[in-house]
Amino acid sequence: MTAGGQRWAAGLYSDHQIAERFSDETLFASFSRFEQALVNGLAKAGLVAAADAADLTRQIAAFEPDTAAITETGIRDGVPVPEYVRQLRVHVSGPAKPMLHHGATSQDLMDTATIEALASVNLVLSERLHGLLDQLSGLSARCGGNELQAITRMQPAITFHASDRIATWRQPLMALRDRLFALQEENRVLQFGGAVGDLQALGDNAEIVARSIASELGLRWPGHSWHSARGPVLAQANFMSELTGTLGKIGQDVALMALRGSDDIRMSGGGSSSAMPHKQNPVTAERLVTLARFNATLVSGMHQAQLHEMERSGAAWMLEWMLLPQMCETAGASLLAAFALIESIEKMGKSA
Amino acid sequence: MTAGGQRWAAGLYSDHQIAERFSDETLFASFSRFEQALVNGLAKAGLVAAADAADLTRQIAAFEPDTAAITETGIRDGVPVPEYVRQLRVHVSGPAKPMLHHGATSQDLMDTATIEALASVNLVLSERLHGLLDQLSGLSARCGGNELQAITRMQPAITFHASDRIATWRQPLMALRDRLFALQEENRVLQFGGAVGDLQALGDNAEIVARSIASELGLRWPGHSWHSARGPVLAQANFMSELTGTLGKIGQDVALMALRGSDDIRMSGGGSSSAMPHKQNPVTAERLVTLARFNATLVSGMHQAQLHEMERSGAAWMLEWMLLPQMCETAGASLLAAFALIESIEKMGKSA
Amino acid sequence: MTAGGQRWAAGLYSDHQIAERFSDETLFASFSRFEQALVNGLAKAGLVAAADAADLTRQIAAFEPDTAAITETGIRDGVPVPEYVRQLRVHVSGPAKPMLHHGATSQDLMDTATIEALASVNLVLSERLHGLLDQLSGLSARCGGNELQAITRMQPAITFHASDRIATWRQPLMALRDRLFALQEENRVLQFGGAVGDLQALGDNAEIVARSIASELGLRWPGHSWHSARGPVLAQANFMSELTGTLGKIGQDVALMALRGSDDIRMSGGGSSSAMPHKQNPVTAERLVTLARFNATLVSGMHQAQLHEMERSGAAWMLEWMLLPQMCETAGASLLAAFALIESIEKMGKSA
Amino acid sequence: MTAGGQRWAAGLYSDHQIAERFSDETLFASFSRFEQALVNGLAKAGLVAAADAADLTRQIAAFEPDTAAITETGIRDGVPVPEYVRQLRVHVSGPAKPMLHHGATSQDLMDTATIEALASVNLVLSERLHGLLDQLSGLSARCGGNELQAITRMQPAITFHASDRIATWRQPLMALRDRLFALQEENRVLQFGGAVGDLQALGDNAEIVARSIASELGLRWPGHSWHSARGPVLAQANFMSELTGTLGKIGQDVALMALRGSDDIRMSGGGSSSAMPHKQNPVTAERLVTLARFNATLVSGMHQAQLHEMERSGAAWMLEWMLLPQMCETAGASLLAAFALIESIEKMGKSA
Repeated sequence: MTAGGQRWAAGLYSDHQIAERFSDETLFASFSRFEQALVNGLAKAGLVAAADAADLTRQIAAFEPDTAAITETGIRDGVPVPEYVRQLRVHVSGPAKPMLHHGATSQDLMDTATIEALASVNLVLSERLHGLLDQLSGLSARCGGNELQAITRMQPAITFHASDRIATWRQPLMALRDRLFALQEENRVLQFGGAVGDLQALGDNAEIVARSIASELGLRWPGHSWHSARGPVLAQANFMSELTGTLGKIGQDVALMALRGSDDIRMSGGGSSSAMPHKQNPVTAERLVTLARFNATLVSGMHQAQLHEMERSGAAWMLEWMLLPQMCETAGASLLAAFALIESIEKMGKSA
Repeated sequence: MTAGGQRWAAGLYSDHQIAERFSDETLFASFSRFEQALVNGLAKAGLVAAADAADLTRQIAAFEPDTAAITETGIRDGVPVPEYVRQLRVHVSGPAKPMLHHGATSQDLMDTATIEALASVNLVLSERLHGLLDQLSGLSARCGGNELQAITRMQPAITFHASDRIATWRQPLMALRDRLFALQEENRVLQFGGAVGDLQALGDNAEIVARSIASELGLRWPGHSWHSARGPVLAQANFMSELTGTLGKIGQDVALMALRGSDDIRMSGGGSSSAMPHKQNPVTAERLVTLARFNATLVSGMHQAQLHEMERSGAAWMLEWMLLPQMCETAGASLLAAFALIESIEKMGKSA
Repeated sequence: MTAGGQRWAAGLYSDHQIAERFSDETLFASFSRFEQALVNGLAKAGLVAAADAADLTRQIAAFEPDTAAITETGIRDGVPVPEYVRQLRVHVSGPAKPMLHHGATSQDLMDTATIEALASVNLVLSERLHGLLDQLSGLSARCGGNELQAITRMQPAITFHASDRIATWRQPLMALRDRLFALQEENRVLQFGGAVGDLQALGDNAEIVARSIASELGLRWPGHSWHSARGPVLAQANFMSELTGTLGKIGQDVALMALRGSDDIRMSGGGSSSAMPHKQNPVTAERLVTLARFNATLVSGMHQAQLHEMERSGAAWMLEWMLLPQMCETAGASLLAAFALIESIEKMGKSA
Repeated sequence: MTAGGQRWAAGLYSDHQIAERFSDETLFASFSRFEQALVNGLAKAGLVAAADAADLTRQIAAFEPDTAAITETGIRDGVPVPEYVRQLRVHVSGPAKPMLHHGATSQDLMDTATIEALASVNLVLSERLHGLLDQLSGLSARCGGNELQAITRMQPAITFHASDRIATWRQPLMALRDRLFALQEENRVLQFGGAVGDLQALGDNAEIVARSIASELGLRWPGHSWHSARGPVLAQANFMSELTGTLGKIGQDVALMALRGSDDIRMSGGGSSSAMPHKQNPVTAERLVTLARFNATLVSGMHQAQLHEMERSGAAWMLEWMLLPQMCETAGASLLAAFALIESIEKMGKSA
């Protein structure tokens, strides 16, 4: 399904760099890493001989799934893992083969892959956020001393300086930059619970295996699975929407300044009109508002998706899949748009 | 942007037949029809000579836009029309050339194209809805006499028959089928307002031109533009979510029946599990719930998008574009899933 | 629970006239009418002797419920009807007593009471909507000829007249006025299904009884119950949000005009500031935006509440109760605010 | 405005203890504390003589506002502070009188009062959350060893123990308990910015005054105002919905267990039915689902409300007021309901 429908609109909402983090290739690479880490964990627990584990992980690493078959079977299974694992079982051989996927379940692979995708997304967002903050500092250095009409409740209040409004844009972004760092830490969490979340197939070895997988994947083992407790994905969704909301506020301010005129702002490269050649529309500013309201809409669905039934809810889980990648891509597109918008500001405020 | 992220998930949420209605090709074909109808309307009003109009419409019909350039320029303009019209102007020649796009604006083309896309979407949905109703009749004919435990507030109430529950599924779908017919009529409405919605460039000829365009495109002329009054797209969004909600209720019932066991329902082709080979998960039933909650989430954004600023809001308009095609595709996917789900029911209720 | 928290804010969001339609008194009066109509229906079907029915309905009419006990027991039952009926049973006597509430269930009383409340709400809204349309006509008569800067995508486009913008406010409101009339008709629908929705306790008499109740209450009998098919309440919710959205767009326009200054608009009675005595904030205009976004938020929950489980869902039903009265009151408050806002406009546009 | 409409329903959704935190009395007490702290801050900065400040704060402390007048004037001003301050100015006298409210603005008082209300709310929630966790430990101690059917994707998976499911309920609640502690710290933040957020009226004294107010009120001074950056209230909203979502998942599990029957769960005190005396409906479990979906709906509006225009947005600010108190009260009611629900569990799982 394509948000926005037409391909022509891709540039308005899409973010290929973020989208790539949710591609089939990235997903299956995560699956592969998980299955390898699991085998190594089983070996650490003494459930597989070290040499056999090494042999099996080599085979897993070399496996290339038949994506078309997974796409087709995924409709029936509601998740790509069963077919992936079936193919992988056909692919591998050797004494450790019966221990492939041992103790794990579809959700372990899927959620851990999501965690890895989000970590990778957040790296991209973090870099862009730093860039945007630098750029806002530059804008403040360039125009900060200019006089600007402060506006409260849609009415001229008193005047202040361009730097004062820019500061109200930068402060929440700095807070988000710090919190994104914290989110990256908190959200590096392994999903591992087995069929019903209690790792019962591994008995006393569960903890050793879990810690080993987490360590190999560079994740944290929280001491238990979180199949039906969706804290990490919800935290990501909340953050994505808070980020786009903060940028949307900047977009709205710029659109309002553009409406008020050149004493407030002067920009280059506005949108043209098919009917009125004289116009330069603050399209990128509007777009930031759009992206903010889009994520503010979608975040509700992520909160609804907290109501997983019993030990695993297909209904709630699939809802996350429909929403969270879009929210991340929207956040990415919003940061790109914000950068382009600030870049296009020729002058902000009235020079003395 | 891709809802659901991975391509493997396409089969869960996508509907290629609906998606095609929002493709670039379909969009540009609508643009072409509009520009031709406009020229013919101008001719009817005596603003263009008949022969010149015929020559110009032939050229418009033959025009093939440079989509890549539109995609790129669309980011700046926030709408594909200015670049489309620019290319078209370069393409055409002759005495009527100055009257190309005369009196129209980007929003006239975009909204009318949306109206045409929705009409086409609704035809598809209508056919499927009829098919689903037939299928439910068949299910009732097959299993309707079986005894079934009625459940109120998550507790066994008294027993009734399978046909009774199937009736509670069919009745709202029949109402929606009738309302979809009405929606198709109401929503066949031309958008035409020119630069600021009042058709002032056409003066006294506005009504003639508008009626002519509407007639040629098989649409209704409501007597005025609706650039900032979003009734038609909101009606579509509400309907899409009511449709997926009604189907989601069926999905939830089936999932609950599957949970209660074979006295309630027996289905074929359930989803398999990577950890528990004995399982047959009611994945399609869950999916109907997912799609319902997805549209129930998105509909909020369409209501937010009612707040168009002044004569045209880029921010609110782009939000519609991000949401409405997805909502239509979700409705399409939901109907396909419902059909597959009912098809998979081997038995409902307990035979006497 | 109080939206907005503080009592001081009551004037911003509340509408006592609408709220009264959802009071306990109104609810229990509906219950009483339903139980009387049911007895009369049973008499029509020959299940109760005419004289006994007359005696019983007199007793029902005279019954005054112990509201405090209903409030307390309602927490346990999740619905006020069981305790209401229990008290009523204690209150009445005579030969028809065993037929009290016969064939009905809690949801029949609750949903029918809601239908009656909504009909009453819609009468109020309809009157106000007519008043607002008149007032807008007056504004147009007064200032319509003034020149006004049309604004598209937050940029000055070309000029038109104040009447042109006022027309874009009036047109969707006229459409809503017509649709409200249609909604009032469609939504006058009896809920009557008995324990599990199929009226099985009444056997062949179901249709007679149902038609009789509907006729006595001035409602339509749709031929079946709609316990789990929530079309009527959803239609109301959609409409409430479309109404507040349309008024919110007016509010936003006025706020933007106030920002642009006195060539656009001049109003009396703006809000004062604790820090800047010179300010006159367009508070009522802002409030229309607030109320629009509030209903656009809540409507999502009503769409989520479509997923009633099986024959009756307490969870989804209670969600409707939390949302729909608020949405109606918000619509009422929005109409009052719109009236006050238009009233306060001293001048719109620039006189020639 | 009253969520849920009828008073009879108050017990389902309301939480008087939480509601009291948003009462007029509590609000005006916060205002009074702020104005006193401001005077003391001005004294610390040498702008008011110490003795005069002491005299003025005594007068402020003794002031009792005319609430009716504030309610009435609040409609015009869209905020209660201007009228409160006007009354206060009339009330006080002495040499420091001109410095009353000096450097502050309405939003400083309102937002700081909100911060104080939330801190108080969170204390209540925190206590209840601890109590609920204890109670769940007790349930696990009592029934944890019983065998229970684990359910994934609405199908029986393998069996585990009651303690395993209870653990999936407790783990996210423990995480929320820890995060609530962190939230209480982060959200103790003073709002202080003056007319347009930059404290310009205080010049070089701004920092001294701000630190003094913060210290007196037991809050943190973040170094700048946050008039248009809504991090703290958004964090509260996200948390409220995550809490109700986590409890809603428990409610849904219990309702599903009640549907599956007494091998899963046995409860006392279920809801009665007006039509079927044999029923015991899991009403409190359903209610937890309702409250979760309610907050998951409202949270979207709080994210929309991030888009404050320029230095202060009445529209976005009032939207917060409509939503956040309800979300807090819903969280409170949800914790009370969860406690009652767990209390009512007589047996969970099948004893060996």
